[in-house]
Amino acid sequence: MAQRKVGVWLVGAWGGVATTVVVGIMALRHKLTEPTALVSALPPLAGLDLAGWDELVIGGHEIRETNYRAEADVLHKKSRVFAPEWWPHIEADLAAADAEVRPGTLHNVGATIDSLAGPKTAAFRGESAGQAVTRLAADIKSFRDRNGLDCVIVVNVSSTEPPVEPAVKELTWAAIDKQLTTNAACPLPASTLYAIAAFREHAAYVNFTPSIGTDLPALDEFARKQGAVHVGRDGKTGETLMKSVLAPMFAARNLKVMSWVGHNIFGNLDGKVLDDPVNKANKVRSKDHLLTEILGYKPQTLVSIEYIESMGDWKTAWDHIHFQGFLGTPMVLQFIWEGCDSLLAAPLVIDLVRLTERETRRGKSGLMTHLGSFFKSPMGCDEPQFALQFQQLLEWAEVVRAEK
Amino acid sequence: MAQRKVGVWLVGAWGGVATTVVVGIMALRHKLTEPTALVSALPPLAGLDLAGWDELVIGGHEIRETNYRAEADVLHKKSRVFAPEWWPHIEADLAAADAEVRPGTLHNVGATIDSLAGPKTAAFRGESAGQAVTRLAADIKSFRDRNGLDCVIVVNVSSTEPPVEPAVKELTWAAIDKQLTTNAACPLPASTLYAIAAFREHAAYVNFTPSIGTDLPALDEFARKQGAVHVGRDGKTGETLMKSVLAPMFAARNLKVMSWVGHNIFGNLDGKVLDDPVNKANKVRSKDHLLTEILGYKPQTLVSIEYIESMGDWKTAWDHIHFQGFLGTPMVLQFIWEGCDSLLAAPLVIDLVRLTERETRRGKSGLMTHLGSFFKSPMGCDEPQFALQFQQLLEWAEVVRAEK
Amino acid sequence: MAQRKVGVWLVGAWGGVATTVVVGIMALRHKLTEPTALVSALPPLAGLDLAGWDELVIGGHEIRETNYRAEADVLHKKSRVFAPEWWPHIEADLAAADAEVRPGTLHNVGATIDSLAGPKTAAFRGESAGQAVTRLAADIKSFRDRNGLDCVIVVNVSSTEPPVEPAVKELTWAAIDKQLTTNAACPLPASTLYAIAAFREHAAYVNFTPSIGTDLPALDEFARKQGAVHVGRDGKTGETLMKSVLAPMFAARNLKVMSWVGHNIFGNLDGKVLDDPVNKANKVRSKDHLLTEILGYKPQTLVSIEYIESMGDWKTAWDHIHFQGFLGTPMVLQFIWEGCDSLLAAPLVIDLVRLTERETRRGKSGLMTHLGSFFKSPMGCDEPQFALQFQQLLEWAEVVRAEK
Amino acid sequence: MAQRKVGVWLVGAWGGVATTVVVGIMALRHKLTEPTALVSALPPLAGLDLAGWDELVIGGHEIRETNYRAEADVLHKKSRVFAPEWWPHIEADLAAADAEVRPGTLHNVGATIDSLAGPKTAAFRGESAGQAVTRLAADIKSFRDRNGLDCVIVVNVSSTEPPVEPAVKELTWAAIDKQLTTNAACPLPASTLYAIAAFREHAAYVNFTPSIGTDLPALDEFARKQGAVHVGRDGKTGETLMKSVLAPMFAARNLKVMSWVGHNIFGNLDGKVLDDPVNKANKVRSKDHLLTEILGYKPQTLVSIEYIESMGDWKTAWDHIHFQGFLGTPMVLQFIWEGCDSLLAAPLVIDLVRLTERETRRGKSGLMTHLGSFFKSPMGCDEPQFALQFQQLLEWAEVVRAEK
Repeated sequence: MAQRKVGVWLVGAWGGVATTVVVGIMALRHKLTEPTALVSALPPLAGLDLAGWDELVIGGHEIRETNYRAEADVLHKKSRVFAPEWWPHIEADLAAADAEVRPGTLHNVGATIDSLAGPKTAAFRGESAGQAVTRLAADIKSFRDRNGLDCVIVVNVSSTEPPVEPAVKELTWAAIDKQLTTNAACPLPASTLYAIAAFREHAAYVNFTPSIGTDLPALDEFARKQGAVHVGRDGKTGETLMKSVLAPMFAARNLKVMSWVGHNIFGNLDGKVLDDPVNKANKVRSKDHLLTEILGYKPQTLVSIEYIESMGDWKTAWDHIHFQGFLGTPMVLQFIWEGCDSLLAAPLVIDLVRLTERETRRGKSGLMTHLGSFFKSPMGCDEPQFALQFQQLLEWAEVVRAEK
Repeated sequence: MAQRKVGVWLVGAWGGVATTVVVGIMALRHKLTEPTALVSALPPLAGLDLAGWDELVIGGHEIRETNYRAEADVLHKKSRVFAPEWWPHIEADLAAADAEVRPGTLHNVGATIDSLAGPKTAAFRGESAGQAVTRLAADIKSFRDRNGLDCVIVVNVSSTEPPVEPAVKELTWAAIDKQLTTNAACPLPASTLYAIAAFREHAAYVNFTPSIGTDLPALDEFARKQGAVHVGRDGKTGETLMKSVLAPMFAARNLKVMSWVGHNIFGNLDGKVLDDPVNKANKVRSKDHLLTEILGYKPQTLVSIEYIESMGDWKTAWDHIHFQGFLGTPMVLQFIWEGCDSLLAAPLVIDLVRLTERETRRGKSGLMTHLGSFFKSPMGCDEPQFALQFQQLLEWAEVVRAEK
Repeated sequence: MAQRKVGVWLVGAWGGVATTVVVGIMALRHKLTEPTALVSALPPLAGLDLAGWDELVIGGHEIRETNYRAEADVLHKKSRVFAPEWWPHIEADLAAADAEVRPGTLHNVGATIDSLAGPKTAAFRGESAGQAVTRLAADIKSFRDRNGLDCVIVVNVSSTEPPVEPAVKELTWAAIDKQLTTNAACPLPASTLYAIAAFREHAAYVNFTPSIGTDLPALDEFARKQGAVHVGRDGKTGETLMKSVLAPMFAARNLKVMSWVGHNIFGNLDGKVLDDPVNKANKVRSKDHLLTEILGYKPQTLVSIEYIESMGDWKTAWDHIHFQGFLGTPMVLQFIWEGCDSLLAAPLVIDLVRLTERETRRGKSGLMTHLGSFFKSPMGCDEPQFALQFQQLLEWAEVVRAEK
Repeated sequence: MAQRKVGVWLVGAWGGVATTVVVGIMALRHKLTEPTALVSALPPLAGLDLAGWDELVIGGHEIRETNYRAEADVLHKKSRVFAPEWWPHIEADLAAADAEVRPGTLHNVGATIDSLAGPKTAAFRGESAGQAVTRLAADIKSFRDRNGLDCVIVVNVSSTEPPVEPAVKELTWAAIDKQLTTNAACPLPASTLYAIAAFREHAAYVNFTPSIGTDLPALDEFARKQGAVHVGRDGKTGETLMKSVLAPMFAARNLKVMSWVGHNIFGNLDGKVLDDPVNKANKVRSKDHLLTEILGYKPQTLVSIEYIESMGDWKTAWDHIHFQGFLGTPMVLQFIWEGCDSLLAAPLVIDLVRLTERETRRGKSGLMTHLGSFFKSPMGCDEPQFALQFQQLLEWAEVVRAEK
């Protein structure tokens, strides 16, 4: 089989998640680790001819200025992840990826994210949305051409933006297109501009963040027009994963959830950005709608996300579920989830890259609806239960396998 | 619609679970409580014409001597369940149920359960297995005749017996039948003798305990011969329910469970019986096999069940799940489940009575395989995941609804 | 020994804590319960000739309109506390206490508390601070005279007020006195006015709440002038008690606390009032200063208090303590405290009444400094460690015992 | 000030605790880490002229064959402790310590520990107790002479032995001495023989394990005769530390502890040895007596210690404390302690070395009674409360400071 070349274009390229994605791919390529935590490595997904670790080429947009090795060292030191003995094996690969990182855009990212920008990105502060899209798309095209890539998958793993005004959702693609081509004022945030840039170059777009990205009818229209697939929104890694697994149990057993309180503490950059209430709003909304959908009624809920510096990339979630059993008797389930944020997110990002590339190869376009199990707010997926979302992925795998 | 009359014959009739079943049915009948925690009251199970609270008639076998009101008072005092204001409304119903309780059998129940027997049951200590079955069947027949019942559902909610020798599983129905009719020595424990008595009278049998009950090929043969349905084994109420909900998440995410430790503390009579290691063996086995089935490999597991008197009927389970995430990183999920044992079990017993009666009315016989979601060790059900087990119940409901 | 008569004047007389105090005293008087949770009933405090259950006469101020039996029923129903079989024994005592409750004052209590007022209290909304004090003092005097009391202990167990302006702390007693006698505008909140009324009548004052009460130099001056003792501030019942017990362990072991996160959820009226951020400020401040005092440095801290209706009077606190061990290794202690708020507070209130009455009988006046173990922010007590605070109480007991 | 030379003779020299002690001392010596977790580095213990990191010389007895660097690597890999960047700085020091390790004795250590012995120790299997003591004492003497040491502190940090027969406690020193000098059969276990060897050489002995060590009247007699100090038994590092901190709170508040359940899981060699029920007996006993001493009554208790391989050197303790509050209301405190065993123990061992050396320099002999805060079963210390035990240490420090 001829070697494929698949571009992985990470928006937020030097962030914790992206750094872990890149270190992880390189560690897998050099057989330094097992494919634990990769859904795409599960036996029921075997035989799908997914992209191999050697076939992935890394690049991306980023607003800060740093490099993979430095970010990996910080993660190692603060959060006790990665094995230092890997560095000699993968250092060259990391440097090659560094060379493919380009300045991002600060368009409507909010003051907190804006304040993190390095000089290279800051130099573009004056440009219009239209200019930004043109520049970002050129970066993607140049990445593809320079590396002779078969396709490019753009993945948004950058910090969470503030929510957009509801009116933005009503914009038609024609209206957006006009704003961009005329360099007019444009209410779209960066996450959407990256997606437009991707679609211009017929690249796929995966939104792993709570930011709006392609969650606008206009963007789906443009994706279909350009023959690109897209999917999103907000990777389901920890507490919400638990909710989408546990809430169906309460529903199936007719146990009445009276209140569900969830407190999350963690100390990475993402946490610092979420300490800004404007940015946090997007995240909390994404974590909270689920229960009503699954239970069919709204219990009292509380979701807090707090930046506790000493935690580093480790997140502890404590959830307290107060429910009524038979004869109205109150009972309690509590859980404590102690996971490393970037290490929970990164394998899912790699899975999404592989599954999105496979769907691209099938010639599909528009929204992918079989990947709901990966997202907190899965676009185009009505099924909120994790177990049934996962069945949808297995069914897709059977269809694809049968095609060959 | 003509009123049906459905006999509910509880083995362990004055135990905590049975007492809660009876108090619960009466509280529902008199509209003193909501049908919270009843699966059979869920919207997706509506329209199945299940038996109503007025249609259930209570009786049963029991080895101790007491009565419902006294047992309910103990539960209220020790465990703060039930509302004293219910008594005036349901006292007469409880007394009527008391009048239908008959002495059980101590055949192969083990020394710990044997020691709990009152004089009425003890008086039958000399009888053979064959004599016991004849007596127990006569009790069921007399209950049905006296009350003009349309059918009887026998439910085993008695304390856990010690495990039987593997050879017992090999016995044919013919061999068993011969042992019984010749009053020969018979290795079957009480839980199986109750089932034989039920089938003789064409009654259904539900085994809510870890005891062997009908989990022998010979018993299924006899059930089919007699046109009776049966189902079992070991109601899935708390920690194991959580396991069958959470383990699929680890499997679907390719997170490698290294160890799963579960400690259970509680203080009811069931706990006291399980303090005898012989009886506990059956229980722990039932709680432990699940993980390997779901995960596809065997993590280190530890399940402890400890009798802590002060807990009364409340059970606290602490589970510590140590798993490997991406790049081999160890992470931890812990949960603490605080539930009241009898109140978790009783609604499922009522559900099983209603669903078993419905299947009886459909003219079915032999093992019911669509009720796997109710059991820790579901006989005839290969699906260990709770969410998918529950789908099987919903599919059955659609079939039944379509028949009408 | 001649019978003493000790007046217990509860500010917030029909609140959850006060109701539990009164029900508790009556249950003890009629020997319906054991003196569990009463510090004053411990062997090392024996032989102090403290007031007996028969010697306490109840009355108080309250802004809502209800009665003890109704409030006790709500607590029983919502929070599963108290035993209904007590009512016939203590109903008459409760009614007698009801008859001694008088309308309180809404002076500077904040909008949230103000909104709870019933018509009798609301009728006094126009009065000046001076008029309020005169009225409240008259209520106390009349209570004492009508019942022939030897002394009166006023205890503030009302909802938490918003914090006062720092300037209020600077007021001299002369300045306050002038404001009151001239009916001038007065920045003092209700908690302080109740104290002034108490001291006017030479009654003692105990501040069990985070409100300012007597925590002003001017009030101590007035107390000493009037020969009255006082003590406060904010009863130490749950999470903060744990902090004052655990933080000394980290300090003594030189384990470096990096962060201490505490989340509290509960659903009583106190919780509802604290849902108003103005009132919450006082409470959080009282819970947070402790760690720095004990540890000698300030770790990152987070204290949240959230109103979750389903919890009723039960409070669950989850604390996550992230600390550095040897060689900088991060470790974690978490605790989960599940207690019933009023039942944790009430015995301490009864203890404080008995100990304050004893000190009054010794002829003392001014601030009592040996009761630090009872308070989150103990006035006049520099020792923040619970174990050493408790030693101060034991030493006082030895001195008092030696006096006899 | 002339440089002192203090010998630290570790019994169990290459175990996890000893390895951490040695790595820790070297890391402190080379200023690679802060003295976090060292009690002896606290401000209230300043000015005592304790031994410095440069003044400690390491040696010891060990039954296995390995070396510090290999053991440190295992700890780093399995349990994510230590920083690999330390190795170049301290490797030479570790090798020097390796060169001072000598074969231990297997006398009465039980089958599980015996099975761990390497060939060098196994070669001494035939020797009598008397011969063993002579050999061990010669090792200590030679260590002292070779290194020109001012004194030697022998610290037992080896795995837990099975308990001894009660009769052993009755032996006089004369009887023991005769058994040793005549090479007669001798019931003393290795932990005691090491102590006798130490005292022969006028070295101090610290027993950080639950093994009996010097907890026999005869040993104290011999220590005083030889002018040596000793102290013990069983370092108080985690769950029991928490018990000695929390139980006094329940006692001081008159909250009645009904049951206290503690489950400990961990995966180091110590855990493997404790998986042998004979060895575990000693440990559980040491963890369990405390509550009765502090509370003044015996609640139901359960202590389990389980070997869970994946945990490595990390120990998680879950404790569930069920207590009665006011009016008999049941409440619950749970805590989860996640600490690294060797890293909790090692700083205390270093503290004990420094404090024991200081007491030796004061010319004291016999049992040291001011170090109770370090031990689960402190010999000669009646005070079970941690906070008050710690006060005893502070008082000792004031006396010593005053002597200078």
